[in-house]
Amino acid sequence: MSKQKLKIIPLGGLSEIGKNMMAIEYQDDIIVIDAGLMFPGEEMLGIDLVIPDISYLLEKKGKIRGIVITHGHEDHIGGLPYLLPQLDVPVYSTKLTHGLISVKLKERKALAGARLKVLPFGSQVTLGRFKVELFPVCHSIPDAAGLIISTPLGTVVHSGDFKLDYTPVHGKPTDLSRLAQLGAQGILLLLSDSTYAEFPGYTPSERVVGETLDRVMAEAPGRVIVTTFSSLVSRIQQVIDAAAKHQRRVFVVGRSMTDIVKMTLELGYLKAPDGVLANIDQLKKMPRDKVVLVTTGSQGEPTSALVRIANKDHRQVHVVRGDTVVLSATPIPGNESLINRTVDNLFRQGAQVLYSRVAQVHVHGHGSQEELKLLLNLVKPRFFIPIHGEYRHLSLHAQLAQSVGIPKENVFLLEDGDVLELTPSSGKITGKISSGNVYVDGLSVGDIGSVVLRNRRMLSRDGIVVVIIAINRQTGKLVGRPDIVSRGFVDTRESKDMIDESRDLVAKTLDHSGVRPADWGFINTKVRDILNKFYYEQTKRHPMILPVMVKV
Amino acid sequence: MSKQKLKIIPLGGLSEIGKNMMAIEYQDDIIVIDAGLMFPGEEMLGIDLVIPDISYLLEKKGKIRGIVITHGHEDHIGGLPYLLPQLDVPVYSTKLTHGLISVKLKERKALAGARLKVLPFGSQVTLGRFKVELFPVCHSIPDAAGLIISTPLGTVVHSGDFKLDYTPVHGKPTDLSRLAQLGAQGILLLLSDSTYAEFPGYTPSERVVGETLDRVMAEAPGRVIVTTFSSLVSRIQQVIDAAAKHQRRVFVVGRSMTDIVKMTLELGYLKAPDGVLANIDQLKKMPRDKVVLVTTGSQGEPTSALVRIANKDHRQVHVVRGDTVVLSATPIPGNESLINRTVDNLFRQGAQVLYSRVAQVHVHGHGSQEELKLLLNLVKPRFFIPIHGEYRHLSLHAQLAQSVGIPKENVFLLEDGDVLELTPSSGKITGKISSGNVYVDGLSVGDIGSVVLRNRRMLSRDGIVVVIIAINRQTGKLVGRPDIVSRGFVDTRESKDMIDESRDLVAKTLDHSGVRPADWGFINTKVRDILNKFYYEQTKRHPMILPVMVKV
Repeated sequence: MSKQKLKIIPLGGLSEIGKNMMAIEYQDDIIVIDAGLMFPGEEMLGIDLVIPDISYLLEKKGKIRGIVITHGHEDHIGGLPYLLPQLDVPVYSTKLTHGLISVKLKERKALAGARLKVLPFGSQVTLGRFKVELFPVCHSIPDAAGLIISTPLGTVVHSGDFKLDYTPVHGKPTDLSRLAQLGAQGILLLLSDSTYAEFPGYTPSERVVGETLDRVMAEAPGRVIVTTFSSLVSRIQQVIDAAAKHQRRVFVVGRSMTDIVKMTLELGYLKAPDGVLANIDQLKKMPRDKVVLVTTGSQGEPTSALVRIANKDHRQVHVVRGDTVVLSATPIPGNESLINRTVDNLFRQGAQVLYSRVAQVHVHGHGSQEELKLLLNLVKPRFFIPIHGEYRHLSLHAQLAQSVGIPKENVFLLEDGDVLELTPSSGKITGKISSGNVYVDGLSVGDIGSVVLRNRRMLSRDGIVVVIIAINRQTGKLVGRPDIVSRGFVDTRESKDMIDESRDLVAKTLDHSGVRPADWGFINTKVRDILNKFYYEQTKRHPMILPVMVKV
Repeated sequence: MSKQKLKIIPLGGLSEIGKNMMAIEYQDDIIVIDAGLMFPGEEMLGIDLVIPDISYLLEKKGKIRGIVITHGHEDHIGGLPYLLPQLDVPVYSTKLTHGLISVKLKERKALAGARLKVLPFGSQVTLGRFKVELFPVCHSIPDAAGLIISTPLGTVVHSGDFKLDYTPVHGKPTDLSRLAQLGAQGILLLLSDSTYAEFPGYTPSERVVGETLDRVMAEAPGRVIVTTFSSLVSRIQQVIDAAAKHQRRVFVVGRSMTDIVKMTLELGYLKAPDGVLANIDQLKKMPRDKVVLVTTGSQGEPTSALVRIANKDHRQVHVVRGDTVVLSATPIPGNESLINRTVDNLFRQGAQVLYSRVAQVHVHGHGSQEELKLLLNLVKPRFFIPIHGEYRHLSLHAQLAQSVGIPKENVFLLEDGDVLELTPSSGKITGKISSGNVYVDGLSVGDIGSVVLRNRRMLSRDGIVVVIIAINRQTGKLVGRPDIVSRGFVDTRESKDMIDESRDLVAKTLDHSGVRPADWGFINTKVRDILNKFYYEQTKRHPMILPVMVKV
């Protein structure tokens, strides 16, 4: 019975379902799509990264035939250094994605033994009972792919992250005719990107940013500083093209931007006419109206070149009146206040600043509602699963699918860990596997659990009070007066009297109760209760209270 | 010399300059405009509220003739309970604002002794050498005002928070003809709201939301739940009107919404036809398509009715498939992820959710670029100061002013604490006074300084390690093995071995150095250095390390 079923399992993406990783399973074969990481939410205090929980995959390790990567963004490849050593399976991707994965694995010392394979567009690889082919899609990085997966039950199409752009800056447009052909033959299931399901109409072409850049380079009285994502190669290309047209030279600033420019020039994804790119040493000699700087920092990252420039803290680049700064990106949720501060500081130094609210300096890499409907119409899948989005995006995408005629019962809204079992005629969520988020904090993967995070949260709000209680090992008597040390709670000088009073309070409590090491649990609770109450009355704050017993 | 000068001093608003409070000073007279509070940024851990620093005003307490409040939002009145007791001056405002101030002062037990005066539109009050008149402006709360301030040097116009709305839902439109008259007579200075200076065109009229609400009430197959700010009385009015038109009854849910509906009905700012408002007891009896609920929670506040409804945690209201939820508000920066989670949870329960990204369910209370230019054109001030905005907003507003012909040297970009001295012919920033933000945390105002916040930040990232070192008071020798307790650093069970190892490390260090109470400073530093290094090598984390010496 369950033998004829295809299982679809989104495995991780913080709140974005299936974004970082999915698994498709048929009998004894599993393929994994993407292996990304997410950046932690603000409530995940001190956490560096979040990766998917792969305990389900580890249980079925022998069945995994390969990982197929759609494109080279962090949220699709960034989990590989952590997960690949555990899974030890081949990884398939297009050429640039392959290059980016190699760099990433090398950085994290996980390259040795990795089996990385280039799968060119249109070639097919057999992975157990699956055959997988990549097809080109437009996204905000070159060589992005969707998947055509042939399975014993029918063909599955996975859109990857995509938009339709009939005039992309490089690469091919999303291969609509291939999809239309497949659609005519009959598609079992479409999994499609929901990130932009809130937006009506079409996402503009990458070219429109080129028009803005062209105008800025023509009109700016001084230097033009463009900041964007280093992986947004088409944007860098357009900066180079506009600079060349207006006889400006392009200086690449910052390590990550320099690295990717070098790599994409070598691989042929980026093209620069001779003499346009210049070395930073020459910057001082150039007239200001002949200069373009390209750098990262569009998200207000504190150590980025742009932020250091904005804070008058960059060794080589100082902004003056007449300079124009273009933030060719939109804020990733959570970064707004860092970015706003950077823009404010650039204005303070007299720059003209163009950012997404005031000028057409960025377009997104995800399709809007009309594009999503077009894909649904071409592929004409029997079943549809919206993926890559928070729950509201999936819900809206599901509504779009119904509006173009897919029956409601054939549209599945999944959450990470849901197991959807599909037959040729119906589908059903039949189980829930362990999924969710594994926190990476420093060197450790997964040791940070809810207790540590809850403690950090508590510490962050009202600080900590440590109560040191020394007792005589033999007599069980209190030795000296309890000591109290606080951090992050109150101004220690101004509140000296209150802290003193609380020491007396503890001493009095312990005199009453007596102190025996065996009673420590009881005393611990009692001291915490008393101080909690006292401090709250005095300050309306709830510091963490940590009584420590020293036996002497 | 300085006798003939008018001083303009923005006094607070976190990053929004002059938003919470400004002072205008001429010789021995000072008037204060607004006394608001701001909500803390995410980096201000544990802080409840932020109020302006009024040390400058306290120094010149005898010269302050009054505080004039533009409107009843928190960021314009919320500082009064903290500041008024210190300043003890009369407070002038329109009628509804006066009501809201009274409620606020009463809540915080600061009403006794407060001299609150109603200043009706068009009346003038003499405050020392100043004469102040309020004029109506449109904003997202009724009875909002701008100021016409007659000074010995000329007339000053302060816009308050405003938009132009030719078809407001209540009250009068912004009084353009009065401003045009004044402009014809000559205005020395305009201070104008920059909040929306990034947006081209005009901000839509409040009426457009009424059209959306009308359509929703007509078409929704089940209940309609509208959530908005309780002070947005015009929005509540439109909900009542649309409900009445479509034979739905309106249930007000939640304390703050109930309180303000009651107050505004009594004062005549809100009007409800007989039988439209209903008591929550009757909710169960009503057919679902005859019900409208109005509540707060549009910002995803964890204790609000909407969030409890979204989490299936509300006693009286449960969302089912067919219900429609309207979030008639836009996210206040910083609240996005809370709101997104709420919307996701409502979708999960089967509701249709309309929010600002997908439907015209909200309009702002601030004027866009064309409105700002219109005001500048009518008032034709000699000098211009953009206020109420972050620095980029002020910069863009300054550019708009120049584009309509105000000379660059007559436009002043101030920061909080800047003192602008104005003569009839020129202006200059001549000083900087103590300004900025005073943190309110629990009961205390201003005791939280940078040390406490820095500690909280450090604690929030990697937790704390407390090292207890007991030494013999007489011999100076270590007593027992140092103890180590951590919170928020690592999983204490999994990392038991590492913690043990670090105890040995401390013991060894102290054996080498010997321990004398007099050396405590040295030992403290040494223990911190050693553990810092050890823990970083082991975990790549930097917990706060707090050595505590116990003399026994």
